[in-house]
Amino acid sequence: MNKPPKIIIIGAGFGGISIAKSFINKKVAVLLIDENNYHNFQPLMYQIANGGLEPDSIAYPVRRIFRSNKNIYFRMAKVFNVAVSLKKINTSIGDFEYDYLVIATGSQTNFFNFEPVKEKLLTLKSIPDALNLRSYILQNLEKSLATQKLENQSQIMSIAIVGGGPAGIELAGALAEMRRYVLPKDFPELDLSNMYINLYEAAPKLLSVMSGEASAKSLEYLIALGVNVNLNAKVNTYDGTVLSLEDGTIYKTDTVIWTAGVKGAPIEGLAKEVIIGGNRISVNSYNQVLNTNNIFAIGDVASHISEQNPKGLPMLAPVAQQQGKRLAKNILNLINDVPMQPFVYKNNGSMATIGRKKAVVDLPNWKFQGTFAWLVWMFVHIMSLVGFKNKLIAFLDWMFNYFTYDKPLGLIIRPYKRK
Amino acid sequence: MNKPPKIIIIGAGFGGISIAKSFINKKVAVLLIDENNYHNFQPLMYQIANGGLEPDSIAYPVRRIFRSNKNIYFRMAKVFNVAVSLKKINTSIGDFEYDYLVIATGSQTNFFNFEPVKEKLLTLKSIPDALNLRSYILQNLEKSLATQKLENQSQIMSIAIVGGGPAGIELAGALAEMRRYVLPKDFPELDLSNMYINLYEAAPKLLSVMSGEASAKSLEYLIALGVNVNLNAKVNTYDGTVLSLEDGTIYKTDTVIWTAGVKGAPIEGLAKEVIIGGNRISVNSYNQVLNTNNIFAIGDVASHISEQNPKGLPMLAPVAQQQGKRLAKNILNLINDVPMQPFVYKNNGSMATIGRKKAVVDLPNWKFQGTFAWLVWMFVHIMSLVGFKNKLIAFLDWMFNYFTYDKPLGLIIRPYKRK
Repeated sequence: MNKPPKIIIIGAGFGGISIAKSFINKKVAVLLIDENNYHNFQPLMYQIANGGLEPDSIAYPVRRIFRSNKNIYFRMAKVFNVAVSLKKINTSIGDFEYDYLVIATGSQTNFFNFEPVKEKLLTLKSIPDALNLRSYILQNLEKSLATQKLENQSQIMSIAIVGGGPAGIELAGALAEMRRYVLPKDFPELDLSNMYINLYEAAPKLLSVMSGEASAKSLEYLIALGVNVNLNAKVNTYDGTVLSLEDGTIYKTDTVIWTAGVKGAPIEGLAKEVIIGGNRISVNSYNQVLNTNNIFAIGDVASHISEQNPKGLPMLAPVAQQQGKRLAKNILNLINDVPMQPFVYKNNGSMATIGRKKAVVDLPNWKFQGTFAWLVWMFVHIMSLVGFKNKLIAFLDWMFNYFTYDKPLGLIIRPYKRK
Repeated sequence: MNKPPKIIIIGAGFGGISIAKSFINKKVAVLLIDENNYHNFQPLMYQIANGGLEPDSIAYPVRRIFRSNKNIYFRMAKVFNVAVSLKKINTSIGDFEYDYLVIATGSQTNFFNFEPVKEKLLTLKSIPDALNLRSYILQNLEKSLATQKLENQSQIMSIAIVGGGPAGIELAGALAEMRRYVLPKDFPELDLSNMYINLYEAAPKLLSVMSGEASAKSLEYLIALGVNVNLNAKVNTYDGTVLSLEDGTIYKTDTVIWTAGVKGAPIEGLAKEVIIGGNRISVNSYNQVLNTNNIFAIGDVASHISEQNPKGLPMLAPVAQQQGKRLAKNILNLINDVPMQPFVYKNNGSMATIGRKKAVVDLPNWKFQGTFAWLVWMFVHIMSLVGFKNKLIAFLDWMFNYFTYDKPLGLIIRPYKRK
């Protein structure tokens, strides 16, 4: 009997998990590798930052997902590079050979012109990031209490968010709700009218990935929650204290959260010409990496340029998941000498939530906003969380939250020191 | 109208919270200070280490506890010292004057002869400690998978616990249950019979603070769970790899958890003669610090030597809580020129749990062990957790845990690097 073909998947995000699941009980040996030992539900990361959810509600161990599957192996390791000619990857725990390689390494923060000052910014890309942000905001509220001058208090407490995409507006809304419903009870001595939440977006509208209705309504919701939304506001630099815009405006704040962009996070060792716009890996319609036959890329890190999608598909979880499912079938086809089928993205719609009863939903043929949108959003996200236990606890957390406005506990477990 | 007397309480542990609560709505202005912004339920710390509970289940923000009480103020700060003659304390956020000072700073780990190598040990005194321990154990299991030699695997996976008191046996039991019920499913590739859990206790019996029945039964439980219990085992040193005993025995392990003792954590600035055995502050029967009239100490950091208690009272939460309640009344008496009453400790019993259906309970007139003891233990601890939300979630976590043996998720959120 022949040994089953070895497939290595790098990355346990939405794409990596999706393709690995599709290989369960197939005649292949799958090695899934990630730096972390858990898969996390990135769309709810901002809920960790404001304390609405705890890490165990949005993260689930990869080993647990594939517990009963004998052909899926997991290793926690950092991948350094791929040696294409040797069909080998080099990692922090040694080398591994593959017959087929799937790169599902996702995206990383794109700091653009803020690259030189990135250490002074806070981000929301990982659970430790989100926990640091939570600690930092709470530490600053404590610090304000020990500060006499009102002007200084305001600088310490206020928060600037750069980027008006889904991550930025969801975070801005969550923080504004925290300021309105939670902080006055926990910090009665602070004058919270000095705590500003400022959102900066370079484009003339928010949420440009969604419909005009969703953009307009999310702006309305944020204004209602007291967020200062600055459109057409191009940020220039930040020195740790002063955030300056291109038009010369300056704003003093100790907290700048960067949600202004992401770029691909490809691995080292691929040919230069393979890395295209947005630092993504160029793939064909089968998600095959340019000029290779056994290396594939899916999700945020992959980009298939076509006439319909001159910039590639959007960097969204459903794209990665659908590509994972299709690619698993295609690799099995390849093994069995059956022609592969091109990937076709099915857009099921998108949504974002700004606060309680304040969400926007774009379905292919129906756009709606408000309480019902919020309920739909909540339902979809709870159902998407991995694992029964996670769903139950997250649901109870949220129910409790909804009825009492009492959730964000605000524990500073590990104080964060910004550079 | 006179200004109300200013009372400063240092420490938001069981003692500090208890006395602060007793001052609610009294004619005093209370400033409660702690390094952390939360109170934590220390007796369940080991449940954080094995992943049975998350931090938000055993920690609760101090501000939240006193949310609706106008005469209790909280500040998150580190106290550097007290200037007794000036009636002032110096902290990381400035100086504060007091009329009455209550020191409730608790205890710290006592490393005894291991002081020089303490950075190589893991401890269980704070939530970050417990989270580090959790990450470290899981990282080592991942590391074992990437290690070829069985001998090295065993050294990496195995765990030594020094100290057979409540903290040591509860942790040993929890880790042994994790090894038996959880790890075989998550790490089917690992031969877990090479993962040893060794407990070292210098005395001839475990749990010497409790009854003979409790000692004997806890030994029986640990052995049943596969823990290697070493009694009369005095540890000599640890070099990061080899743990050696005084009798010359050596044991190779990457993980040594130190639960062998605590000592008082007094603040600086008190007279030298006030610090007595166990690094505790000498107090009289009113918890008044020796040679002072407006400085008091309660809980682990305080020691009242008497004929009945030649070593002072045990360092236990109920002692601190009862002293806090009594001292609040005594300080009010002092303010109102009424004689103070001496503190009398009421021992309501003690308990420890080794695993599911395996607990030991000593009541003043009744000692029992086993399933009923475990249910009593569970009930008492759930009822003790601060805050309705915490109780509910902790209860659900535990119920789920009990029915499915499925809880400890094992998320390595922040990898820990031992020195």
